Amino acid sequence: MGREFLDLVDISTAHKITANLFREIYHPPRIEEVNLSDAYGRVLARDMETPIDLPPFNRASRDGYAVKAEDTFHASEDNPSILKCIEVIEAGSIPQKRIEKGCCSRISTGAPVPEGADAIVMVEYAEEKEDNIIIYKSAYPGQHIALKGSDISKNDIICTKGSILSPEKIGALSAAGISKLPVIAKLKIGILSTGNELIEPSNDWSPGKIFDSNSHSIAAAIKNCGCKPKILGIVKDDYMELYNAIQSSIRECDILITSGGTSAGAGDILRDIIEDIGEVIIHGISIKPGKPTLIGKVDDKLVFGLPGFPVSALIIFNVLLRPYLMELSGKSLDYKYLRELPLAQRLHSSKGRVHYAIVKIEDEKAHPILKDSGAITSLADADGYIKIPKNVEILEEGSMVKIIPFF
Amino acid sequence: MGREFLDLVDISTAHKITANLFREIYHPPRIEEVNLSDAYGRVLARDMETPIDLPPFNRASRDGYAVKAEDTFHASEDNPSILKCIEVIEAGSIPQKRIEKGCCSRISTGAPVPEGADAIVMVEYAEEKEDNIIIYKSAYPGQHIALKGSDISKNDIICTKGSILSPEKIGALSAAGISKLPVIAKLKIGILSTGNELIEPSNDWSPGKIFDSNSHSIAAAIKNCGCKPKILGIVKDDYMELYNAIQSSIRECDILITSGGTSAGAGDILRDIIEDIGEVIIHGISIKPGKPTLIGKVDDKLVFGLPGFPVSALIIFNVLLRPYLMELSGKSLDYKYLRELPLAQRLHSSKGRVHYAIVKIEDEKAHPILKDSGAITSLADADGYIKIPKNVEILEEGSMVKIIPFF
Repeated sequence: MGREFLDLVDISTAHKITANLFREIYHPPRIEEVNLSDAYGRVLARDMETPIDLPPFNRASRDGYAVKAEDTFHASEDNPSILKCIEVIEAGSIPQKRIEKGCCSRISTGAPVPEGADAIVMVEYAEEKEDNIIIYKSAYPGQHIALKGSDISKNDIICTKGSILSPEKIGALSAAGISKLPVIAKLKIGILSTGNELIEPSNDWSPGKIFDSNSHSIAAAIKNCGCKPKILGIVKDDYMELYNAIQSSIRECDILITSGGTSAGAGDILRDIIEDIGEVIIHGISIKPGKPTLIGKVDDKLVFGLPGFPVSALIIFNVLLRPYLMELSGKSLDYKYLRELPLAQRLHSSKGRVHYAIVKIEDEKAHPILKDSGAITSLADADGYIKIPKNVEILEEGSMVKIIPFF
Repeated sequence: MGREFLDLVDISTAHKITANLFREIYHPPRIEEVNLSDAYGRVLARDMETPIDLPPFNRASRDGYAVKAEDTFHASEDNPSILKCIEVIEAGSIPQKRIEKGCCSRISTGAPVPEGADAIVMVEYAEEKEDNIIIYKSAYPGQHIALKGSDISKNDIICTKGSILSPEKIGALSAAGISKLPVIAKLKIGILSTGNELIEPSNDWSPGKIFDSNSHSIAAAIKNCGCKPKILGIVKDDYMELYNAIQSSIRECDILITSGGTSAGAGDILRDIIEDIGEVIIHGISIKPGKPTLIGKVDDKLVFGLPGFPVSALIIFNVLLRPYLMELSGKSLDYKYLRELPLAQRLHSSKGRVHYAIVKIEDEKAHPILKDSGAITSLADADGYIKIPKNVEILEEGSMVKIIPFF
C-alpha cells in the first residue's frame, strides 16, 4: 500500500537544497512597473534618481515680500524701510520683474523668488500703504528662501533599491515627479488541493465530505509573503486529473503548491507525476508534522507537495517556503514578534525528528495545543509554534521556548 | 491678508473633539460581506459559529483497517487476529457496510469510520492475505478516530468578532464551510490637494510648478490604516473650484481630506466654504507643524484641512487621524515599533506649542532632521518623529526620546 519515501532528509539539508533551488530559478527577482497608486507596500527594485532639482526653483517659504536684504538692514518699528511693490507673485506663477534697489514684490508661500531678491520679509513685519510697503524688521540674505536644489539635486538618489514604499517614500518620489516605479514583481503561486473527500466551502455539506481549507489558508499565507496566490481548485486523487491540472497550471505560475495526497499510504500520485514530467528532488523530511513533504521541479519551476492536514500544511509553508518567498519579495522576515516564554506544561516530542508544536499564549505562558493536526480549532486558537530539536524527547514544564508567529 | 484663526486649541482638546466626532458619526462601523479570497487582513465584524460539527463525522486519522477494538485485544506478532475485509472505504465516500464481530474494512485517512467500528489499526501493523486481514497489534477503543464534533461542535464559536483574518483563521473558517465573511467595511476617504502651483507627478515639469505629493503619500497612509483612499485630484485655490470639488465628492466619501491652502496667509477659502456649507469645528491647533489644521463637518461627514507641506501633512495625519481610523478599522495602533533612544544633538523647540520633530535613527541615536518642513528629503530619510511637550524649549543632547514610527 504505497511505496516508501525517498531517503528522508533532515530539515537543515532540506533548507540547503531549497535555498539553492530558489537562488537558481528565481534570482534575481523580476521587476515590474507600477503607478504611484499601486506602489504602497511594494519594494523598490532600483535606486531612483530625482529627475529635477528640489525645490525646482528658489522658493519662498513664507507669505510676505521678496526684497533685497540690504534694503532692510537697520529697519525697525521706529525706523522702517519703505519699498515700492512692483508685482504680486502667486504660487504657481512665474515672476515677470526683477527686484532692483528700493523695490519688492508681494509673494506667496511656494512661489518662485524673483531675480534680484535674496530674502523674504514675512507679511507680519510689513504693512501696505498705497503702492508702498513699510518694512519694520531687517532681513538677512537667504531668509525664508529655499534655494533651488538645496533639498536634493537633480540626479541624486532620492530612494534606494530595496526600500519598502511607505507613505513617506511615496511622498518623496511623487514630489520629484516620478509617477511610475520599478518594483519587485510578485511571484505568482498556484494552489491545488487534492483529495476525493474535498469540496469547496459552502452552505451545502455532503456526507463523507470535508471542506477544503488549505487552498484558502495557503492563499492568505502567500499574500502575507508579498506574492500573488492563484487558487486552482480541488483535484481528485487521480493520476490523470492531477497530471492535467499540473500541466495546465504550471505555465501560468512561478511556483505550484499542492496539499494533500502526499503520504505514502494515500498513494504516490503526485510523486509519480512529478517523476514523469519533471524531477522529484525531496520526498520525505524528518520533521513532525510534514514528513511526507515533496519538493520537485517541472519546467524549471518548483512544485511543493504539502501535507493535507491544515495545521501541517501551514507549518510546512512557514518553515520551508516563507523565508525564501519573503526574501524574493524583498521583505525581511520579521522576527520582532518572536517571544520567549515558559512552557505551561510538559511536552513530549518525537525521537529523531525536528518537531514543530503549535502553542497558544495565555497568562504569559506558552500552552501547547495537543489536538491532532487535523483539528481545525488548533488553527483558530494558535498564536504560533515552537521548534523542538530532534535530540530532545521531553520539554519540561517551565522550559523557556521561542514562539515563532505563523505570520 | 487673511483672517485670524479661530481660537487656537491645544492638541489634547483637539483629540477630545476629534474622538467625539468619530464616535458620533462613524460608530458603530459599517459591516460588509467578503469572499474568502478577499478576507486576508480584514477584521471580523461578528462572532462566527460553525454551521457543522468538526469533524463532520467520525473520521479515520490514519490509513488502515476499521475494526472492533475487542477483536484485536491480545493480538501480537506471534498471535495475530485474523479478520475478514468486507469493504474498502476511500476518503470522500460513504461506508455501506456495518462492521460486525470478526470483520473489518480497509479505510483511508479522512474517510468516515463505518458503523460498528471503534478503532483503526494502522496499515503498518496489518497484512492482507487474500480476503483476510492479519492484525499484529492490539488496538484500544477510539484509536486513530477523530470523533464527530470532537474538534468543535455545531453552533460553537469558531472565530470571534474583532479577529484579524490571518491565514490560520481563514483556514479554520473555510474548514467549517463558511465562504462569506462579515467584516468591518473600509471607510472611503477622499483626498483633494489644493494649490495653484500643483501639478500631477509626470515627466513634464513646468516652471513655477510643484509636483503634488500629498495626494499620493496620504493615499498610502490611508491604506496603512485599513481604509480606502480616493484621489480626487488637484484643485486651484479658488472658492468656486474648491466648493464644487467638495460638494461633488463629499457624497461618495465617508471622510474628506484636503491639504494645502489652510494657512491664514494663503487665503481662507477652505474655511469659508466649510462655514458656508457646513460647520468649522476647529481651525488652528497649537502644535508645530500643523498650526493651520482645520476640522469641519459637511453633510454629517468630517472634512480635514491639512497643511500643504508634505512633512506637516503626514505628521498631522498621523497624530490626528490615524488613531481614529485604526480604531474604526478594528486594528490596534501598533506601538511595538516605538523605540526610546538618546537624542544625537541639542534640539530647540517651540515655546507654548507641542512640537513634532522628525528624526532619523543612526548609530542607535535619534538624529533630528532639521530641514524645513517643505523639504522632501526629510520625508525620504525620516524613521519617525518625536513629540516635545509644549513647556519644553530645549532638549539636550543625550535626552532619551520616544520615536513614533510614521507607519
